[in-house]
Amino acid sequence: EYATVDHHRRLRCGFPEVIFGLNKTAEHVEGILHAMKRQGEGCLVTRVAPDAADRLKRAFPEGEHNPIGRTFRIRREGPEPPKLGVVRIVTGGTSDLPVAEEARVTAEAWDCDVALVADVGVAGIHRLLGRLDELQGADVLIAVAGMEAALPSVLGGLTDCPIIGVPTSVGYGAHFGGLAALLGMLNSCSSNVVVVNIDSGFNGGHVAALIARR
Amino acid sequence: EYATVDHHRRLRCGFPEVIFGLNKTAEHVEGILHAMKRQGEGCLVTRVAPDAADRLKRAFPEGEHNPIGRTFRIRREGPEPPKLGVVRIVTGGTSDLPVAEEARVTAEAWDCDVALVADVGVAGIHRLLGRLDELQGADVLIAVAGMEAALPSVLGGLTDCPIIGVPTSVGYGAHFGGLAALLGMLNSCSSNVVVVNIDSGFNGGHVAALIARR
Amino acid sequence: EYATVDHHRRLRCGFPEVIFGLNKTAEHVEGILHAMKRQGEGCLVTRVAPDAADRLKRAFPEGEHNPIGRTFRIRREGPEPPKLGVVRIVTGGTSDLPVAEEARVTAEAWDCDVALVADVGVAGIHRLLGRLDELQGADVLIAVAGMEAALPSVLGGLTDCPIIGVPTSVGYGAHFGGLAALLGMLNSCSSNVVVVNIDSGFNGGHVAALIARR
Amino acid sequence: EYATVDHHRRLRCGFPEVIFGLNKTAEHVEGILHAMKRQGEGCLVTRVAPDAADRLKRAFPEGEHNPIGRTFRIRREGPEPPKLGVVRIVTGGTSDLPVAEEARVTAEAWDCDVALVADVGVAGIHRLLGRLDELQGADVLIAVAGMEAALPSVLGGLTDCPIIGVPTSVGYGAHFGGLAALLGMLNSCSSNVVVVNIDSGFNGGHVAALIARR
Amino acid sequence: EYATVDHHRRLRCGFPEVIFGLNKTAEHVEGILHAMKRQGEGCLVTRVAPDAADRLKRAFPEGEHNPIGRTFRIRREGPEPPKLGVVRIVTGGTSDLPVAEEARVTAEAWDCDVALVADVGVAGIHRLLGRLDELQGADVLIAVAGMEAALPSVLGGLTDCPIIGVPTSVGYGAHFGGLAALLGMLNSCSSNVVVVNIDSGFNGGHVAALIARR
Amino acid sequence: EYATVDHHRRLRCGFPEVIFGLNKTAEHVEGILHAMKRQGEGCLVTRVAPDAADRLKRAFPEGEHNPIGRTFRIRREGPEPPKLGVVRIVTGGTSDLPVAEEARVTAEAWDCDVALVADVGVAGIHRLLGRLDELQGADVLIAVAGMEAALPSVLGGLTDCPIIGVPTSVGYGAHFGGLAALLGMLNSCSSNVVVVNIDSGFNGGHVAALIARR
Amino acid sequence: EYATVDHHRRLRCGFPEVIFGLNKTAEHVEGILHAMKRQGEGCLVTRVAPDAADRLKRAFPEGEHNPIGRTFRIRREGPEPPKLGVVRIVTGGTSDLPVAEEARVTAEAWDCDVALVADVGVAGIHRLLGRLDELQGADVLIAVAGMEAALPSVLGGLTDCPIIGVPTSVGYGAHFGGLAALLGMLNSCSSNVVVVNIDSGFNGGHVAALIARR
Amino acid sequence: EYATVDHHRRLRCGFPEVIFGLNKTAEHVEGILHAMKRQGEGCLVTRVAPDAADRLKRAFPEGEHNPIGRTFRIRREGPEPPKLGVVRIVTGGTSDLPVAEEARVTAEAWDCDVALVADVGVAGIHRLLGRLDELQGADVLIAVAGMEAALPSVLGGLTDCPIIGVPTSVGYGAHFGGLAALLGMLNSCSSNVVVVNIDSGFNGGHVAALIARR
Ligand SMILES: Nc1ncnc2c1ncn2[C@@H]1O[C@H](COP(=O)(O)O)[C@@H](O)[C@H]1O
Ligand SMILES: Nc1ncnc2c1ncn2[C@@H]1O[C@H](COP(=O)(O)O)[C@@H](O)[C@H]1O
Ligand SMILES: Nc1ncnc2c1ncn2[C@@H]1O[C@H](COP(=O)(O)O)[C@@H](O)[C@H]1O
Ligand SMILES: Nc1ncnc2c1ncn2[C@@H]1O[C@H](COP(=O)(O)O)[C@@H](O)[C@H]1O
Ligand SMILES: [Mg+2]
Ligand SMILES: [Mg+2]
Ligand SMILES: [Mg+2]
Ligand SMILES: [Mg+2]
Ligand SMILES: [Mg+2]
Ligand SMILES: [Mg+2]
Ligand SMILES: [Mg+2]
Ligand SMILES: [Mg+2]
Repeated sequence: EYATVDHHRRLRCGFPEVIFGLNKTAEHVEGILHAMKRQGEGCLVTRVAPDAADRLKRAFPEGEHNPIGRTFRIRREGPEPPKLGVVRIVTGGTSDLPVAEEARVTAEAWDCDVALVADVGVAGIHRLLGRLDELQGADVLIAVAGMEAALPSVLGGLTDCPIIGVPTSVGYGAHFGGLAALLGMLNSCSSNVVVVNIDSGFNGGHVAALIARR
Repeated sequence: EYATVDHHRRLRCGFPEVIFGLNKTAEHVEGILHAMKRQGEGCLVTRVAPDAADRLKRAFPEGEHNPIGRTFRIRREGPEPPKLGVVRIVTGGTSDLPVAEEARVTAEAWDCDVALVADVGVAGIHRLLGRLDELQGADVLIAVAGMEAALPSVLGGLTDCPIIGVPTSVGYGAHFGGLAALLGMLNSCSSNVVVVNIDSGFNGGHVAALIARR
Repeated sequence: EYATVDHHRRLRCGFPEVIFGLNKTAEHVEGILHAMKRQGEGCLVTRVAPDAADRLKRAFPEGEHNPIGRTFRIRREGPEPPKLGVVRIVTGGTSDLPVAEEARVTAEAWDCDVALVADVGVAGIHRLLGRLDELQGADVLIAVAGMEAALPSVLGGLTDCPIIGVPTSVGYGAHFGGLAALLGMLNSCSSNVVVVNIDSGFNGGHVAALIARR
Repeated sequence: EYATVDHHRRLRCGFPEVIFGLNKTAEHVEGILHAMKRQGEGCLVTRVAPDAADRLKRAFPEGEHNPIGRTFRIRREGPEPPKLGVVRIVTGGTSDLPVAEEARVTAEAWDCDVALVADVGVAGIHRLLGRLDELQGADVLIAVAGMEAALPSVLGGLTDCPIIGVPTSVGYGAHFGGLAALLGMLNSCSSNVVVVNIDSGFNGGHVAALIARR
Repeated sequence: EYATVDHHRRLRCGFPEVIFGLNKTAEHVEGILHAMKRQGEGCLVTRVAPDAADRLKRAFPEGEHNPIGRTFRIRREGPEPPKLGVVRIVTGGTSDLPVAEEARVTAEAWDCDVALVADVGVAGIHRLLGRLDELQGADVLIAVAGMEAALPSVLGGLTDCPIIGVPTSVGYGAHFGGLAALLGMLNSCSSNVVVVNIDSGFNGGHVAALIARR
Repeated sequence: EYATVDHHRRLRCGFPEVIFGLNKTAEHVEGILHAMKRQGEGCLVTRVAPDAADRLKRAFPEGEHNPIGRTFRIRREGPEPPKLGVVRIVTGGTSDLPVAEEARVTAEAWDCDVALVADVGVAGIHRLLGRLDELQGADVLIAVAGMEAALPSVLGGLTDCPIIGVPTSVGYGAHFGGLAALLGMLNSCSSNVVVVNIDSGFNGGHVAALIARR
Repeated sequence: EYATVDHHRRLRCGFPEVIFGLNKTAEHVEGILHAMKRQGEGCLVTRVAPDAADRLKRAFPEGEHNPIGRTFRIRREGPEPPKLGVVRIVTGGTSDLPVAEEARVTAEAWDCDVALVADVGVAGIHRLLGRLDELQGADVLIAVAGMEAALPSVLGGLTDCPIIGVPTSVGYGAHFGGLAALLGMLNSCSSNVVVVNIDSGFNGGHVAALIARR
Repeated sequence: EYATVDHHRRLRCGFPEVIFGLNKTAEHVEGILHAMKRQGEGCLVTRVAPDAADRLKRAFPEGEHNPIGRTFRIRREGPEPPKLGVVRIVTGGTSDLPVAEEARVTAEAWDCDVALVADVGVAGIHRLLGRLDELQGADVLIAVAGMEAALPSVLGGLTDCPIIGVPTSVGYGAHFGGLAALLGMLNSCSSNVVVVNIDSGFNGGHVAALIARR
């Protein structure tokens, strides 16, 4: 047997295991989902390729596929649980949306109230300033940005809550697959910024939910 | 005038400005502290050089100097405020202490209940497992580690709270001033880990307090 | 003539030459195998592409193809030789299996007793602790891991034998094709860890056998 | 003779040669200044060490030493020439001032109207927004910033003139001597930003003057 | 809604927004162009893939497709406006042409008089020296070059106007996708050189026009 | 016109221009070859793609295509010129052959006596020592090697002639496209080693001929 | 208390803890040594600064200071134990000696028969070939080398035992503090080479002893 | 004994061993010089620190100290030998002189006719063009340059002899200790350029002599 499943994660960590779909066959993912459903768990799959999504939609018609965020989610049975915290996601540009959507679905699956303010990068700061009210009441912000990734620094000075910066690999030239954005966020002059790995919408959404649910 | 002071930060962000002592003269820092005290604010100075600390101790005998963490703190007047949240700090080795102490003093200044579990790096995992009870009840953990910085990954699987990884520049050879530790934390297989800049105990403590106080 | 074959390697080094299949045509590999078989040698081919494997299986029905590890092995004729040492292989995740299987086949071809414990990465440390007995009696461990590659550090503190760390290119974002994992292993806080190149299951298995056979 | 002096630079380029003081002895610099003065030229020396400045001040009492910008300037004889263009310099923090002053002195020596707005980094965006009127009428802006260097991106969206970004080596941790700031500026989402080398206040001021004088 | 359009850019910046075609579908680009045309604006699209260009040509027969520069431009209605400044573009080799053409179309769209001198790299310096007269009268030069990118340094000493260096990703081996060329330009010994991101012909042409139009 | 042909190169440099085929169409290359042939020049094309080679072979039946070295050569008319110097090429492994062949064809086109000793890498040093006599009389050696590229260092201590190291991008893992090999050669402990760019067989062969012909 | 001592390491790992002297005061080290001696353990301190060594020599006259290897060793009481394995150390140059001596003292403290062959780098391969008999009978070799670090590759082909490569930071220019040597060893064409961190003589000696004692 | 002297180098390589003075004590160097003198050899020491030079001058009054190039040379006894070839050295700036002088002394010691043209960097190309006649008749050129290191590319197109590029660590900002210059030379668009390590005047001079003496 090639896998050592972590059966007690919900007990230990408060969340069921999430299936990272990247190198898995659709058959493999479908099998794991059947097993989890049998235990009454809801379930989240990330990085679902388009054809894998088709198969999963046929097998689990109640599942929800987010094609931009590349996620597939099956909700736990029973009534919709109450919202446990408020997460707001902000993106610099339109190309950052796949990462932002992955974060959104994750935080929603963890029972948070989530909303998204897209394409308000700092090259047009009035766009961000004009929508600050939509960020009111957030327990935590997720700032998703590529290129020079200045968004979390600006946001950081406008709010008193933690900012999770998610650098994206959006850019070209001396961007180095998102490294420039990552370094920008790590060196942010706003001291309320923390960072996760490049393109890691799942990690951003997951920690945001951990913070918001407290 | 060469500085544009941010007078409204407490209003906007909930915390007074912190003085980053690195490139400032002792005279300069003393001047700023006098001004802040006049406004009834407590104050925190980070990265205080030993001789600057001596001068500050003479000028502000009520101040508290932490020589390992390189901080100087003047408490707000009035009774000790209640603790607003629980922060636990864990270090991989003894050499990580200066960074951990900077984090500790910061989170304490932000009115958190803080404690430190030092030198429990993963090369002797029983040391960490034997002290897990000291981490119970934490709202957030700060994991301070150099070398390969595996500590937050292991901690991340043992708890359900957010982990702030603070990579340190402790190490030699192919460590590249903490870059190896930083990359290790960014690529953590535990999805509840977020990261701040290398040696940035202040940022770690600051965001930990933001989270714990919610 | 474009190649200078190393005919005396078994005499000098104790092992026959291994065919690195990466840039070779299936015809070319088949030809070398025929020549080696004529000398009564068993033989190991690594990095065999799927279609090359098909051809080799037709030409040498007695050969063993490991599709995950991408190897093709023809055993020496005669009775199975006795086991000369004990090698145990541990992987952090399921995606590390191709590299681990390459190491396994190599160490088996060198007449070692080999077993594999998969998917016991440090984000769920209880998985590793629960299977430590399977590592008992090993002369050497091979730790195959990607992402932050903390596995050899944790293993290193739990055993008194040498650990060969094999970083894998599994990961995304600031992983840089396995560089983060490589740096993590080189900076391991456990002093019984040595490292081979990224994804180099063959080197890991080869040196493990050299050590175990002593 | 170890030097090949460029006597026709003013003819060819419109500016006299500037002396880069970094690896030159004070004697050497003094000698060159005497020669240039003999030709009736004014002169600018950059990167003047403190003790070299002392010697130059004794030798040329009419010279102007800027100790923060590390420059020494001797004006051309005759009446003050008219201003040929408007340059405004903006800095993110106080520590960026040495680089900004080098840029200021350079642009002033090239007969520009220059002013400086300091310490208006993006972590407190209201500081920048509150001083935009001081940037009105500029032919070109110089944005001097370290850490993540988001300042030129924000400025770029607020104005229609070219922005010359000068990254500084101010920062710590994963800043890599200003490389993070440099990458941030190169990847700016504002398309009116161009960049010069790290800490290169002279280049920034020189090109700003070339642009403003048109 | 996933986009926050910047409607006031021409008012604020003097230029209409430019559509960066890289990750956009042809349908999406066509839609934006229709909207802009309705506002009477001319429009520029960059990084247009060949099949997207075909669709745009059918929808807007008056548009101009530059297949080398990968641009699609629709002119504002009315008489051709007067030229507002002089831009000259120089390339080191033939492979730099796509980047140079992107710069040319951009500067032309911004109403500049633009011309191109191609393939005059420094390995045959007489080629450049023989065509210097074509650069006479330029307000600004754009130097497009890959490999070691020495062209702006040589140009810089031959003229008194600003040089915008555009490094290209042309090269092989230790070129690192244009990084060598970028570093060469940043470290230019000519002090009138500023730099934009690798392959960023649009940024080069845009800033050149900003400078030339003053 | 997009190209500035260098007609006087043979006069200035002693060699006709060589066509770098990488980004050129077969039509384009054929056209240049026709023009050069008209001037009575022989000609060398490097980095010829397989299909371009087919077209060239049809157009110039007298041309010689080297499919491993990816070259196409048309000899000058008239009798074979005398050999002007002795070049020997050594490779570490079989995979280095394409680069070595490019060097060989180049040096032969420059009228040198060239021979190749392949697959004598330092992991089997006896292979190299056993063929040293084939290197006797060389004016210059070209050492082509990937992986750790130790070959020129060993060669350098066995001979008194210059060694041109050509690092190749052969390898995997932490090889970084030949960077490890390049750094190895630059840091060679043998002081008679000089280096050209990664995979640059043409440069190696060209400079070798320049040296050998003296 | 800031340290969590690992009292059971000898039980678990077969060796007492070793004191890494780098960031510790002489007083601190002396205190730990007293405690260990009380338990009847011998002890090894690495990276001992010269003045710390003086203090330790006064406090423990029976201790042995190796000034080149920067070690201080106190032997266990009782008769000299038998040798448990054979370790041979080879260095490329004289400057590699500090690292080699650290390895030597470590392996000797772990009861191995150790000898050193110095300054036999590959630029004079006859030096190495002439001393191969001194490496006969080794269970494991340690190859210590800087610059291009070709030594383990050459050694690897001459022997059938494992080679531990220890890259050193000896070199200049594009050596990057030993990174070139490290990459060279990781990419070794000899498959019996494993690697430890740059300058890590202790790790090299430690693992060599683990292997040799089997 | 810690050193394995290479007594036959002159026989094998045509040159006596050169002493690399960097990490050696003055006593050590003096001892080696005495031994070499006894064998009738002349001798060259490179990287001589100022105080070591003082000691050597007292011990060997006939020796020649070059304080800029940091060399100490003792000529062979007997009449001055004839010049065996022509080497010309060109530098981009004055700060490159230490490296150029090291190259000069080396090539002179190897009996070459050497001359130096300094400070003719490409930012003032007329300086170089005006002194081309001084380079006439050279068998080989050494181009010493820092910053963007465009000098060998320009030289390469003006001559038909090999160019040895020696990058220097002169520069600041994104120069990375000479890495930018090294990359520039490796990516030179002139195909007659080969490269040695950063600041390696000795290697440059040594190989130049090897070439010129043929
Ligand atoms: N998009 C994602 N990015 C990073 N980690 C993920 C992602 N999705 C799932 N994971 C993590 O991967 C684990 C499952 O990995 P696996 O066992 O390979 O399915 C989950 O428990 C998550 O912690
Ligand atoms: N140790 C520290 N590390 C990083 N940032 C700090 C540190 N201490 C203070 N800061 C930040 O620096 C700001 C003050 O910078 P300054 O104006 O230079 O004193 C504070 O408001 C903090 O956000
Ligand atoms: N998977 C592998 N990774 C690295 N080296 C290998 C691998 N398989 C074989 N080798 C080595 O490559 C040598 C043969 O290379 P070649 O002559 O190119 O077939 C063998 O002797 C092994 O040392
Ligand atoms: N080729 C290009 N390179 C870089 N930036 C561009 C390019 N073309 C357009 N842009 C910028 O991208 C903005 C539009 O981006 P978007 O909203 O994604 O279409 C424009 O206003 C320009 O500032
Ligand atoms: Mg947009
Ligand atoms: Mg410890
Ligand atoms: Mg798993
Ligand atoms: Mg400030
Ligand atoms: Mg050309
Ligand atoms: Mg081979
Ligand atoms: Mg030596
Ligand atoms: Mg000069």
